[in-house]
Amino acid sequence: MSSTPDSAVRTYIDAHRAAFLDDLAEWLRIPSVSADPARASDVRRSADWLAAKLKETGFPTVEIWETGLQETGASGAEGAPGAPAVFAEWRSGDDNAPTVLVYGHHDVQPAAREDGWHTDPFEPTTVDGRLYARGAADDKGQVFFHTLGVRAHLAATGRTAPAVNLKLLIEGEEESGSPNFPALVQARADRLACDAVIVSDTGMWSEDTPTVCTGMRGLTDCQIDLYGPDQDIHSGSFGGAVPNPAMEAARLAAALHDEDLRVTVPGFYDGIVELTGTERELFAELPFDERRWLRAAHSHGAAGESGYSTLERVWARPTAEVNGIGGGYQGPGGKTIVPSSAQLKLSFRLVAGQDADRIQQAVREWVAARLPEGIRHEVTFWGATRPCLTPLDHPYLRSLTRAMGRAFGQKIRYTREGGSGPAADLQDVLGVPVLFLGISVPSDGWHAPNEKVELDLLMKGVETTAYLWDDLARTAADTPAAETPAAR
Amino acid sequence: MSSTPDSAVRTYIDAHRAAFLDDLAEWLRIPSVSADPARASDVRRSADWLAAKLKETGFPTVEIWETGLQETGASGAEGAPGAPAVFAEWRSGDDNAPTVLVYGHHDVQPAAREDGWHTDPFEPTTVDGRLYARGAADDKGQVFFHTLGVRAHLAATGRTAPAVNLKLLIEGEEESGSPNFPALVQARADRLACDAVIVSDTGMWSEDTPTVCTGMRGLTDCQIDLYGPDQDIHSGSFGGAVPNPAMEAARLAAALHDEDLRVTVPGFYDGIVELTGTERELFAELPFDERRWLRAAHSHGAAGESGYSTLERVWARPTAEVNGIGGGYQGPGGKTIVPSSAQLKLSFRLVAGQDADRIQQAVREWVAARLPEGIRHEVTFWGATRPCLTPLDHPYLRSLTRAMGRAFGQKIRYTREGGSGPAADLQDVLGVPVLFLGISVPSDGWHAPNEKVELDLLMKGVETTAYLWDDLARTAADTPAAETPAAR
Repeated sequence: MSSTPDSAVRTYIDAHRAAFLDDLAEWLRIPSVSADPARASDVRRSADWLAAKLKETGFPTVEIWETGLQETGASGAEGAPGAPAVFAEWRSGDDNAPTVLVYGHHDVQPAAREDGWHTDPFEPTTVDGRLYARGAADDKGQVFFHTLGVRAHLAATGRTAPAVNLKLLIEGEEESGSPNFPALVQARADRLACDAVIVSDTGMWSEDTPTVCTGMRGLTDCQIDLYGPDQDIHSGSFGGAVPNPAMEAARLAAALHDEDLRVTVPGFYDGIVELTGTERELFAELPFDERRWLRAAHSHGAAGESGYSTLERVWARPTAEVNGIGGGYQGPGGKTIVPSSAQLKLSFRLVAGQDADRIQQAVREWVAARLPEGIRHEVTFWGATRPCLTPLDHPYLRSLTRAMGRAFGQKIRYTREGGSGPAADLQDVLGVPVLFLGISVPSDGWHAPNEKVELDLLMKGVETTAYLWDDLARTAADTPAAETPAAR
Repeated sequence: MSSTPDSAVRTYIDAHRAAFLDDLAEWLRIPSVSADPARASDVRRSADWLAAKLKETGFPTVEIWETGLQETGASGAEGAPGAPAVFAEWRSGDDNAPTVLVYGHHDVQPAAREDGWHTDPFEPTTVDGRLYARGAADDKGQVFFHTLGVRAHLAATGRTAPAVNLKLLIEGEEESGSPNFPALVQARADRLACDAVIVSDTGMWSEDTPTVCTGMRGLTDCQIDLYGPDQDIHSGSFGGAVPNPAMEAARLAAALHDEDLRVTVPGFYDGIVELTGTERELFAELPFDERRWLRAAHSHGAAGESGYSTLERVWARPTAEVNGIGGGYQGPGGKTIVPSSAQLKLSFRLVAGQDADRIQQAVREWVAARLPEGIRHEVTFWGATRPCLTPLDHPYLRSLTRAMGRAFGQKIRYTREGGSGPAADLQDVLGVPVLFLGISVPSDGWHAPNEKVELDLLMKGVETTAYLWDDLARTAADTPAAETPAAR
């Protein structure tokens, strides 16, 4: 299927590796911390630096996209200007070439030497094949491998433009919760139109076990306020004869699950895309060490929905979680009151096939039906991020798997991601499948001191993209449109 | 049964009413606010004033008892000196006379004109037969009626000493939670020894429905701390596969009651003294207006144990109440975490026959048995106040009912009190029944602005005690010791 000679790709990458790493180091020196208003100019500098580098790489179109401003058509967070995103486009010369949009981000988490870094977080340092710097893995390294990757693709195939219409959207606010991203994607949907999104902001199972992530859970979260007596009242004079909102909050939370720890809200599981036997077998093949996983979770026990493994619970099963509960007296000692009010914060992780709107409605009805007379309530949902999932037999996913397999020389396995991310906004607005191409490993220490990237894996990322565009273009040509369904 | 002529009592009271009220007003002018350290000298002045007045009344023994000091043998709260109590004793000349201990308090709640008082709270003002002042009903008025009462008793019977050995213990810290009272009672148990305690610090159903309170609920309360992950963790990465302490706190709270809102802790109801058919009938005869009661409770609904009326639930049924619950994120908006810890504050109101120690143990075992692997817990009980209850057929209670009936010229009905109080310390340490003699009514506004006492009812209190000592002495003489059991 491939017309890209592996040896040509490797030769090209080897020849350009040093310069590529020097460039990456230069970018990593820019402390583009989006959460710190004092670093706003660094975030902008990072965008400018990347834009210039993409021009140099050969992208004919490179633009800085402002966010959170009226002129983008986006309604920014509180009207404040957001951090700039970088958009780049390189059209294939080929008619009917598929269009691919790469997503990543150029902003980073805060970092300071005194947090426990062994080296300056903004002075990249290579030790034993590991590049230490804030952003090395999350996400500058994983954005940057696309630059050398596309050049290797051209060099090895003798093309002057990529085999796919290649677009990049590298945002500058991911570490601040992407407040302006949904609006940006909405406003720029025409420019972002594509056949698939490649998210390069995730990771693999481990150094020894290269994997492709096939989906993320969605999320919708809410606050439930319960109101009982108009003020805290004496539990001796009234206790036992009036409803207690703290108790009702507890009852709601406790009633969320049955004995099998399945969520009891009616219709919660309706329409979900169940794990296939193949996926379960593939998950089970992963070298999962539950004790190690529990250590990472800082948890002293595992518990979850009956009939599913820990990985299945986290990756592929929807949840209802109590994020916070509060009501009545919480100071030292005791206070014999029936509290006036209580509050419950719940989040629901969603999987493919679940409809966040329908679930919000179901939760509202479920709450209303369960409360006794004398308890008023309000349910406020904060919003929803939809789940995304690409089926294992999706032709583009097979293409990505092949490209990675060639780069790694190993069987590629599959994972999912339990969290929720802006990838879902791209999927929703653009109506296309989302693929995840990441080479980071759990030991890379995202958001932690001494973040690093394994240089060998980083170069595997370069190599994967060098094979990928050609493979994807051929796959698209060989595949009837009906077989490249949008993700659920 | 009585040898006290009612007309002689009334004549004596009428003759001394004006002087009695002048004296009471003088006492009420002393702002003996125990909660305010700046008023400590006023609390002492109040004790001294009462001591002098009791001497003047005729009590041969009057003592100021310091509290919270080494010399009392009491272990004071944090070693700080407490407020002084007043003890008085007047021995009957009669051999075998029973000994009665009257309990009340001379300290008052804070009060300031700007809280909504129509008159100066420490300048007693009489309007339409109501005496307005802080402490008018709670508790100086109800302590003070004993002074004129015992004089009327002597005058009408021609005695020179009361028919009972009469002791008074009037504490100075009740409005501050009686921190030194249990230790004081323990240390002075010999001097306080008696056959019955009369608590004059409660009230009646209403002006039209004079009642005797026959018991108070007990109390034991605790905090349950639950610990899950060692830190808050990401609900996307780990949610659905690890136990959540906020959820477990909710489950514990929710599991405290069954569908009938009965407490599920094993053995909770063991040994309780059930309401008799007679008590239930008498309670049902009270002109109870649930809507009015709900307004007083600031509650918008009634709910409680199946099979019991609201009054029965509050007065005579034990409860488990959530006083506070907290865990995880409680700030604005959402935060998608599995919290590290959660906390539950529970109080259990107890009724006669329940053993606080056994219930504490049962709660500890119940909690330990319900938590999943991965959740550590601690249960801390703050202490226990025992319930008290005098059966309706107790000879001393019959005696009190008769004395009140003569004073009020009406059928006396029975109530109980849902709260818990220092009366239980007297019952426990001294091992005697506790009777409640109070003439205050709900509209008196304890702890509120414009506290008042109805002068007609206050004089009924005087009159009741004028009949009571003689009746009690005769009752004691007529009753085999076996028929005056200690309260449960």
